Amino acid sequence: MIAELISVGTELLLGNIVNTNARYLSEQCAGLGIHVYYEVTVGDNEERLTQVIRTALERSRLVILTGGLGPTEDDLTREAAAGALGLRLVEDPHTKERIEAYFRNSIHKTISPNNWRQAQIIEGAEVLDNENGTAPGLFVHTRDGKHMVLLPGPPNELIPMFETKVLPILSRLRDGMGTLYSCMAKICGIGESMAETMLKDLIDSQTNPTIATYAKAGEVDIRITAFAENEEEGIRLTAPVVNELKKRFGDHIYTFKEKETLEAHVVGLLKELGFTVTAAESCTGGLLCGRLVNVPGASAVLKSGFVTYADEAKEALLGVRHETLAKYGAVSRQTAEEMAAGAAAATGADAAVSVTGIAGPDGGTKEKPVGTVYIACRVKETVRTERFLFKGNREKIRELSVQNALNLLRLCLSERKKAPQGGISE
Amino acid sequence: MIAELISVGTELLLGNIVNTNARYLSEQCAGLGIHVYYEVTVGDNEERLTQVIRTALERSRLVILTGGLGPTEDDLTREAAAGALGLRLVEDPHTKERIEAYFRNSIHKTISPNNWRQAQIIEGAEVLDNENGTAPGLFVHTRDGKHMVLLPGPPNELIPMFETKVLPILSRLRDGMGTLYSCMAKICGIGESMAETMLKDLIDSQTNPTIATYAKAGEVDIRITAFAENEEEGIRLTAPVVNELKKRFGDHIYTFKEKETLEAHVVGLLKELGFTVTAAESCTGGLLCGRLVNVPGASAVLKSGFVTYADEAKEALLGVRHETLAKYGAVSRQTAEEMAAGAAAATGADAAVSVTGIAGPDGGTKEKPVGTVYIACRVKETVRTERFLFKGNREKIRELSVQNALNLLRLCLSERKKAPQGGISE
Repeated sequence: MIAELISVGTELLLGNIVNTNARYLSEQCAGLGIHVYYEVTVGDNEERLTQVIRTALERSRLVILTGGLGPTEDDLTREAAAGALGLRLVEDPHTKERIEAYFRNSIHKTISPNNWRQAQIIEGAEVLDNENGTAPGLFVHTRDGKHMVLLPGPPNELIPMFETKVLPILSRLRDGMGTLYSCMAKICGIGESMAETMLKDLIDSQTNPTIATYAKAGEVDIRITAFAENEEEGIRLTAPVVNELKKRFGDHIYTFKEKETLEAHVVGLLKELGFTVTAAESCTGGLLCGRLVNVPGASAVLKSGFVTYADEAKEALLGVRHETLAKYGAVSRQTAEEMAAGAAAATGADAAVSVTGIAGPDGGTKEKPVGTVYIACRVKETVRTERFLFKGNREKIRELSVQNALNLLRLCLSERKKAPQGGISE
Repeated sequence: MIAELISVGTELLLGNIVNTNARYLSEQCAGLGIHVYYEVTVGDNEERLTQVIRTALERSRLVILTGGLGPTEDDLTREAAAGALGLRLVEDPHTKERIEAYFRNSIHKTISPNNWRQAQIIEGAEVLDNENGTAPGLFVHTRDGKHMVLLPGPPNELIPMFETKVLPILSRLRDGMGTLYSCMAKICGIGESMAETMLKDLIDSQTNPTIATYAKAGEVDIRITAFAENEEEGIRLTAPVVNELKKRFGDHIYTFKEKETLEAHVVGLLKELGFTVTAAESCTGGLLCGRLVNVPGASAVLKSGFVTYADEAKEALLGVRHETLAKYGAVSRQTAEEMAAGAAAATGADAAVSVTGIAGPDGGTKEKPVGTVYIACRVKETVRTERFLFKGNREKIRELSVQNALNLLRLCLSERKKAPQGGISE
């Protein structure tokens, strides 16, 4: 099945934002075995948009449009798509009711007449309810066997809608074409090019299943994909590769579950152990706690955390000794360890992670250049501390710090799970 | 001048990488007053690539191609562009010499016969030397007044080449065409459709300057763009609209500086007032502090912060009274205010913001549904507390909470700046 993506929005053509939707949808289509041959971005101009949709319908069987479904007069995707398909727009009572309910439950927003435009749908289209906004998605099956999907532009509306509403329809369309079974190994602590080198022979000799790597900050995801008759055969075909990956990457693999994030995995480990956790953050300024709180139900294990950006806060809130800061500096193994110990003592948490480092752009020295980060992880009485030197800008360094702090916590908790130590506090 | 960008590379269509080049080039073109009407991504397939280039030459005067200039057989942009233009490829002795020199000076790379393909240029093209790789860029002026630029895909080769070689040529082409001046008003506390309604008459009657809105979580950006002879005239043309926006949106506008984020603006206000700030976060779990720490130099104003996710942490770290939690609950105006007061007391900060709410998916009740968030902002002895009801998933609710907490802090600080109150602690 040949597909084409059309991104709608003058803000893309002006370079105001990066088109991450196109990347997301490309990746999703690739995972489904759908071949994306063209991606087109066009502005909020009805004539050009209609022309682009016509061209897409000529050369592709599946056309996915994103953006331009908002309530304003700039938002023309509904009109242009209907025009290109030769179909009318009609009011959808179900969507109208949803929009009314949305505004009824919201105290700060007033409904504006423009909002009713979002209740206009292409006749005969399947309506995809939007759980995170007012613009519904639309799925149109044409008489000549083509398929068109209209999705809202904001990623926090598009992604949930794609995963819960569009994926099932696309999977159904692919029925009888065999299935594409895939699983994922998620790896921390090894860079992408190292992972590629460790996989080179497997990648070079691959036919079915195939292996592909995707790098994120501090994480490499390896996707193993097999074309198979059914899921059972898919599992059978991928099993030898999965075993080989376990052998080669060992503890670096934190999960084989595609939907499991590192923070969810860590929260899971804490729950299994019946442990609580706290964090003492300097350069990451709350982002580590923020990642943990991402996980629904994190309240069972995370009771509190500290942002101690200034030296005096490290002393006052965590009891880091003045002499330690004076002698070794705020960015040091000693300070990291006292931060973790102080956070554990102040809260009674079973586990404590601390991060202290230099995120830049200023503050680096010859001995401790920008990117130097100490992470200490204390689980009960056992402490493990690591020094990192991250490359990149301020944001990247902070992101890598959070990722590696979570990974160190994961490793300490996994070890604990394997061999619980005795101790006074047990 | 109407332009079109063509990105070449199957890795883009598979979603392996995000197309940051398209964004960069769009932004550059917008700055030059060149209108990008279409952006197309196509894979390493000569037939489809040639077709896409032909279409671009029909509808655009400037066509910029990126990628596919490498040495391998996958790299087909030179061939396809020459084919679409009806021109031949010829060997360029100057480029051949540069490739030889490149490999002579490189200890790690061995020259491969494929590399000579990169010395093939479109006849009559201006060669743009690549200071960071072997693939030269090409600039072709066609007989019918069209312009085509071929640039290498790696951003570290593309960007320097664009800035040093392409910009001067494009500026020359644009001579006497005037300039595109734009500025931006950034607004918090008003939704996009409401903002559009408030702007409708301006948008409907716009010619020069024009107005466009862009929505982010909890923020609407309004861009005002004028075509003018020069920057001075641009400022003169946009000034009446800027004044009108000030009148209509008042305090909701936090900045007219395009590059200034809300957190940077807040840090700036704190610095002006000589104030420090702290945060007490429940449902946002550290993200509010994390946003503030985004700002380089935030350490001057943010010394510490608290994540108090559990009730016992609110009591132990912030001194929230047990009776308050028992009587009003953790998600209440009273708890929010005691959290802010406690954080200020524990750290001595001049300002304190607290956030307590229900981010979901569970935990909602009829009186306090998922999305209910209380934000208290204390500046010296003055406290302002607001109740919000946000819509969306857990992530969206937390993002909106952070944005609105920053906005409430901004409003309190701005007020303070206008009318500093007396008080014991002054």
